[in-house]
Amino acid sequence: MEANRLEAIFKPQSVAVIGASTVPGKLGHDILANLIRAGFEGLIYPVNPKAEEILALPAFKQISDTPSPPELAVIVIPAKAVPNALEQCGQAGVKAAIVITGGFAEAGSEGEQLQQQLTDIARRYGLRVLGPNCQGVNHPYHQLCASWPLLTTKGRIALVSQSGTVGAALMDWANQEKLGVSTFVSLGNRADVDEADVIQYLNQDDHTQVIALYVEGVKRPVYFLDALAEATKPLVILKAGRTEKGRQAAESHTKSLAGVDAVYDAIFRKYRVHRADSLEELYDYAKGLAYLPKPKGRRLLNISSSGGAAILAIDQAEKLGFTVPEPSPALKDQLASFLPAHCMIGNPVDLTGDVISDAELYKKVIDAAQAEYDTMVIIFGDPIPRASQIVTPGAAELVVFLGGADIERQEVPLIQGQGIPVFPTPERGVKALHQFFRFESAPPAMPAPTLPPAGLQLLPASEAAQLLARYGIPAAAAPLATSAEEAVQVAESFGFPVALKIASPDLPHKSDVGGVRLNLGNAEEVNYAYQDILATVHLNARKAQIDGVTVSPMAKPGGLEVIIGMNCDPQYGPILMFGLGGIFTEIYRDVQFSLLSNQEEDYRQMIRGITGYPLLAGARGQRPKDEEALIQVLKGVARLAQSHPEFDQIDLNPVLVYERGVFVVDVRIFSCIK
Amino acid sequence: MEANRLEAIFKPQSVAVIGASTVPGKLGHDILANLIRAGFEGLIYPVNPKAEEILALPAFKQISDTPSPPELAVIVIPAKAVPNALEQCGQAGVKAAIVITGGFAEAGSEGEQLQQQLTDIARRYGLRVLGPNCQGVNHPYHQLCASWPLLTTKGRIALVSQSGTVGAALMDWANQEKLGVSTFVSLGNRADVDEADVIQYLNQDDHTQVIALYVEGVKRPVYFLDALAEATKPLVILKAGRTEKGRQAAESHTKSLAGVDAVYDAIFRKYRVHRADSLEELYDYAKGLAYLPKPKGRRLLNISSSGGAAILAIDQAEKLGFTVPEPSPALKDQLASFLPAHCMIGNPVDLTGDVISDAELYKKVIDAAQAEYDTMVIIFGDPIPRASQIVTPGAAELVVFLGGADIERQEVPLIQGQGIPVFPTPERGVKALHQFFRFESAPPAMPAPTLPPAGLQLLPASEAAQLLARYGIPAAAAPLATSAEEAVQVAESFGFPVALKIASPDLPHKSDVGGVRLNLGNAEEVNYAYQDILATVHLNARKAQIDGVTVSPMAKPGGLEVIIGMNCDPQYGPILMFGLGGIFTEIYRDVQFSLLSNQEEDYRQMIRGITGYPLLAGARGQRPKDEEALIQVLKGVARLAQSHPEFDQIDLNPVLVYERGVFVVDVRIFSCIK
Repeated sequence: MEANRLEAIFKPQSVAVIGASTVPGKLGHDILANLIRAGFEGLIYPVNPKAEEILALPAFKQISDTPSPPELAVIVIPAKAVPNALEQCGQAGVKAAIVITGGFAEAGSEGEQLQQQLTDIARRYGLRVLGPNCQGVNHPYHQLCASWPLLTTKGRIALVSQSGTVGAALMDWANQEKLGVSTFVSLGNRADVDEADVIQYLNQDDHTQVIALYVEGVKRPVYFLDALAEATKPLVILKAGRTEKGRQAAESHTKSLAGVDAVYDAIFRKYRVHRADSLEELYDYAKGLAYLPKPKGRRLLNISSSGGAAILAIDQAEKLGFTVPEPSPALKDQLASFLPAHCMIGNPVDLTGDVISDAELYKKVIDAAQAEYDTMVIIFGDPIPRASQIVTPGAAELVVFLGGADIERQEVPLIQGQGIPVFPTPERGVKALHQFFRFESAPPAMPAPTLPPAGLQLLPASEAAQLLARYGIPAAAAPLATSAEEAVQVAESFGFPVALKIASPDLPHKSDVGGVRLNLGNAEEVNYAYQDILATVHLNARKAQIDGVTVSPMAKPGGLEVIIGMNCDPQYGPILMFGLGGIFTEIYRDVQFSLLSNQEEDYRQMIRGITGYPLLAGARGQRPKDEEALIQVLKGVARLAQSHPEFDQIDLNPVLVYERGVFVVDVRIFSCIK
Repeated sequence: MEANRLEAIFKPQSVAVIGASTVPGKLGHDILANLIRAGFEGLIYPVNPKAEEILALPAFKQISDTPSPPELAVIVIPAKAVPNALEQCGQAGVKAAIVITGGFAEAGSEGEQLQQQLTDIARRYGLRVLGPNCQGVNHPYHQLCASWPLLTTKGRIALVSQSGTVGAALMDWANQEKLGVSTFVSLGNRADVDEADVIQYLNQDDHTQVIALYVEGVKRPVYFLDALAEATKPLVILKAGRTEKGRQAAESHTKSLAGVDAVYDAIFRKYRVHRADSLEELYDYAKGLAYLPKPKGRRLLNISSSGGAAILAIDQAEKLGFTVPEPSPALKDQLASFLPAHCMIGNPVDLTGDVISDAELYKKVIDAAQAEYDTMVIIFGDPIPRASQIVTPGAAELVVFLGGADIERQEVPLIQGQGIPVFPTPERGVKALHQFFRFESAPPAMPAPTLPPAGLQLLPASEAAQLLARYGIPAAAAPLATSAEEAVQVAESFGFPVALKIASPDLPHKSDVGGVRLNLGNAEEVNYAYQDILATVHLNARKAQIDGVTVSPMAKPGGLEVIIGMNCDPQYGPILMFGLGGIFTEIYRDVQFSLLSNQEEDYRQMIRGITGYPLLAGARGQRPKDEEALIQVLKGVARLAQSHPEFDQIDLNPVLVYERGVFVVDVRIFSCIK
């Protein structure tokens, strides 16, 4: 890595434009004009065999004619003439070249050979070459615009792109938003300089705080990994070409799952690269990481003129693991002391449209709430004049502006001009803020309660099983035994093996408290299991009311576990659920919901809608399971729910599905206490 | 539902503004001004007790003073005065009112009572009331702008919003893009008219092609469902308030999985509502459904001035089930006959930056390729003048413009002015187009091949097992038997039970061809299984080379199935994979990848990165499995891969993990043929 020679691409003391033109509209003219207009402070040499003077600068016939060798040459001449020009650069002692011209490797085998010549010449002279087929470099801090269009705003993000257009689109956004860039690098065909070089260089660049890359392919994997490993600045990468187009048919599971892209997921996770899934994410993530201060924690206060916009922010925030706590009572009192009466004090603090005439209200809330929150989400959701005066550069504030029409178009540049990023929707803002937490593990999920809450009671298992039978749902009988002897008696009446389960209105999750024994094969095992269950549950749930133990015949083997449930929605009434049982439900959340329906087709679609449906349909050489019987159970539960509006929740879990028929092993029904 | 009275909100013959004001900047003034300037053709009555004339219209002291009762009253007076004004409207025979004023239910209990009065008055007089606390109605086709700002562009999308700001933001986008709306309805607090009413009304509206709604809550669930069921036009809904904030702790699985939002997923799926996940999706989906013609099929041709932008489109397209076939040889020839030599003819057709000076090239490609594709994805990825002249209204074209800077800002309105939607990024365009296929099942996935492809050979199982052992990986021995007698002999040396598996270099997936028998308990079973395997496999794979059958001891029970694999990436070399086995891998694709590493921590993170990790860590009352032993296997596979660069793929599947130790049941190693 000749870092000092790479320096000549970004910070040359002198620049030649080979192919400089007198004709406006031609790149050879426009790049020269941009170099001049950007205020480049070194010497600029137009090179053109036919012109005496271009844009008031004396022109030179060839590079060797310049009074001193320029450090950087920008080459804008037809492809076939480029190798010769580059050779002359090498001979003249030029340190680096940017080849704008296209028609090389991207244009077929002839172009490939031409490009190989450039690579060879670069190696021979130790000349660093960016391109060919690229859009150049723009380095506002060095007043170097060897690119187009002319953009001079100095920013914090380095944009690096393998695609000219993608780079240009990002530059245009950064320019429209007055954020600017620290550097823009269009890599082109990468005959010499590639993404690894540029990452390493920009990681040392004083003005670059975040490196954003659009990458289609990586030229030197080992160097690329090194560059990622060494990078100390945040990297945001959009790796295109993710899908499986053209993938070879794969012989192993591993290869078929790896596809063409899994390796980049693995690499980016390892090196903590912020992978973007779209062009807008690439831009938003870079913008957030460069311009937002890193939040101390995940507590957000939403301050908005619009309830709706705040709800969108909160939805996105909670999805990503942020918390949105209510203000403390003291803070609420304080806010109430100065906010107009109709403002809503909570999270969000909804200032309503009043702030159109008094943007200062935002500022007062921010000042008061600062100590309780990690980030203020400030949503300007109306045409709010003077919005730009109430935000503070460097403060822990996430600013969103929407619905502000012309006032928004006036204020946003005024805010961004202060180095404060503004996001166009609440969702995009919150997703950008989340990048600071992307590589931290998410906060733990809410633990499940062990006892049923007030207002609900658990139907005894024996009663629930009888109820199911009345609705045509085949369920395991579960008579209650209140002594070991009785349990043995019941077991013998069923025939072995049997299952014993704790019977308690307080313990809906029986196995969690050690209250289940399966596959008991004889009287002795039943006797022991009865005692053992009571002792174990007593230890685990001392306060629970224990009614005894239920005894059930074991289901015959070979069934697939599924779960069927009903939950009463406060607005829409009973909702049915279907999913594969056990881990599929608990960990993968692979379930589907449906309103009650009198069309079997709706239930069939629900069943077929789960990801794991192939298991039911007969994956892995198994025979298909009895889908129709499942539909009948769903219809039965629907009728049951309609007849018993007092039932708040029903879990049939597990239900075993066989090739023919189904069997409900366990059922829990929660009823409202009237 | 008095539909004809609702008509008075959207198509009144006369309008009164109660609270009309002479002071510009006040809503009572600005709404009156907008009514006039939008060109409303009926009578307009300003109502103001103090003014004689407002904006050159004679003003009236009260509603009863107007020469004839207006059909619609727009009310913009302080909240406390609204009930009385509405009462007067009822008495005067006004058919409908829009209450702009806030300070009702959104502002506490006093406001709630005030709002209830509005509801009561509305019922008493059969007066339909929109609002209170709303931003009114804009219906450009009726030249009715009882809202602000003044927007008059006639479009195809009806925007309905429960949030003023969200509605205003959408209106602003539609206006900036020159697409306009068919109607804008701000629902406000919904004292009377609600989302169900408006959906039903707009479904009958001649100019509305798509209804886009922002909804936080639904007032009358039954009517809402009816409205969805009856709607014949595409509905796009952003339902906010999705997350679990404030969710009660749930006692049943069903309830805990249902959360607060699953019911809307179920409803929207049933009624084929296009659910949007963000504000931009709401806008993009509505725009696509309203302005793009429904494609005949999924075949896309990408025509672009930018390779990068086309790759982004293709990535998104393939993710969503579109196909991107190459042009036929005939079409390629035809394209080559007129395209400049350096254009790349494939999918995409990359026209390169040349089209900046010759946009007609797009048109020529479109015309030539029309017959082979369902939709042309036209990507203007540069400042392309005259882009607006090469697109055709109503044609099967998806237009994306990016990276075009000022030219883009000139051309996009010219394109959209023709009723052709333009999307700002390839990803957003393709996602919008996909809405037409959202409720169709995805095309079938690529079938797995049965035979290993040319260039790879499968190592014999016995050899592979020995190799693993040399790298410290405990695997089932799998000696080859070439007769039933030999198989019995080997089985007896292991002790029963054993497993028999077909040995063939052509059959990597042994169970797919009926080549596996497990749990054979004695010599007789082994003898029978041997014959049976050979007969079955012969039937299923007549051409496969059969070497015999391998005999292995059965693994001890109680292990958790996982899969460990290696795949050689052409650039990065060996990549390791870890996942839970069986269905978890095949259906849920719950796997993680890692580069080779000498840090155990990397492998530990890979193991812990799968969704199903709780199963390994000891979910459902199980003891934790031996994670450290798994790490040792991964390290062993890594060493194996490094020592054998000729190995292209390795599958250890299944691997059983116990509380202590692991056991590789089956292994497949594919080696490159040199």
